[in-house]
Amino acid sequence: MPRLIDLSHTLVDGMPGFPGDPELRIATQETIASTGYNLALLRTTTHQGTHVDAPFHFFDDGQAIDRISLDRFFGPAALIDLAPGGELPPGARLTEETFAPWREVFRPGARVIYRTGWSRRFGSPEFFQDCPSLTLDAARWIAGRGTGLLGMDTPTPSTDWLECHRALLGAGVLIVEALANLEQLPPRFTFIGFPLKIGGRDGSPIRAVALVEDS
Amino acid sequence: MPRLIDLSHTLVDGMPGFPGDPELRIATQETIASTGYNLALLRTTTHQGTHVDAPFHFFDDGQAIDRISLDRFFGPAALIDLAPGGELPPGARLTEETFAPWREVFRPGARVIYRTGWSRRFGSPEFFQDCPSLTLDAARWIAGRGTGLLGMDTPTPSTDWLECHRALLGAGVLIVEALANLEQLPPRFTFIGFPLKIGGRDGSPIRAVALVEDS
Repeated sequence: MPRLIDLSHTLVDGMPGFPGDPELRIATQETIASTGYNLALLRTTTHQGTHVDAPFHFFDDGQAIDRISLDRFFGPAALIDLAPGGELPPGARLTEETFAPWREVFRPGARVIYRTGWSRRFGSPEFFQDCPSLTLDAARWIAGRGTGLLGMDTPTPSTDWLECHRALLGAGVLIVEALANLEQLPPRFTFIGFPLKIGGRDGSPIRAVALVEDS
Repeated sequence: MPRLIDLSHTLVDGMPGFPGDPELRIATQETIASTGYNLALLRTTTHQGTHVDAPFHFFDDGQAIDRISLDRFFGPAALIDLAPGGELPPGARLTEETFAPWREVFRPGARVIYRTGWSRRFGSPEFFQDCPSLTLDAARWIAGRGTGLLGMDTPTPSTDWLECHRALLGAGVLIVEALANLEQLPPRFTFIGFPLKIGGRDGSPIRAVALVEDS
């Protein structure tokens, strides 16, 4: 029987976004006493919590989130665990050499998720500022391999976010950020993470899920 | 090869919600000129566009959206087309008899989607006010069959929304509202529609997708 594993953080009021971006607001809009039903109102950026970046995030002429083919967000995926049972140190640099043992999983269109162990720091200041980061060369190498989707448990592929996002998104690599529970994944699984269909915009919060075949 | 069919409406600024609820706002928060990246800010209720209702929507002690098992939102589903090639008239009443030819698809835990042809009226005033509606008896019958998830191309299972939602959600039937493109579906498919993991709240916009095996 296939099993579903939740790869998403819970969205809660006050959750910080990327430094400088508005924090998440979740408020009670209606209650059973007021209208007969409970209803919440969210104020969220397109990049809150577990989310996906579209090329338009960094390129005005890049593909918007609602224009990307659904099959990019669903299908076979590989996990790269860079810190089995633990976590990488703050500021760890992820180079092409870091990924050498998994070189073959970076194929045209491949969905690749890497684990640093940093998901437990989700929401803390260091989560954004000191997270393990791809070098620009590594980002270019991943992009050059034709990778289709790159996911991670950090909030950005690199603290050198501008150049690194441009290298990946400019090559059409979709980026899924702030994944959770990656320690529960086997090396191969089916990734499911469809974005909301937000017309002409740059990304979307997602419910990322793994479908795992139990042996 | 399986094929993915998008069952979701596009979210755009100014899209109306259920009468009385705040409309959707999507604004440009940052641009490549301002910060180096495009970023949008959404103000949305938990029930905007294509979305799912959790029992907590109508019951303070009902299950919240982030507490519902993921497998409720993924798996085999049946389509009931009530108006093949066309649409039902305004105010059409959907009774137990309406569903009699499909009686056997309403099984414990089943995911059942019905099509009225009203998705092309999405966003218009009549979409909310005159849509084809379950009678309360029909809602109770569907709930009594142990149905797991009920989806539709109308914004509510009934304009008698209070009693009808209570009959369904009170029995644990999840409700997926305002689906699109149902005319593209075969009678059997795999439904995928995970909610955002909004802590302790009543529902979520979703990207609803069908996985269809081509013959």
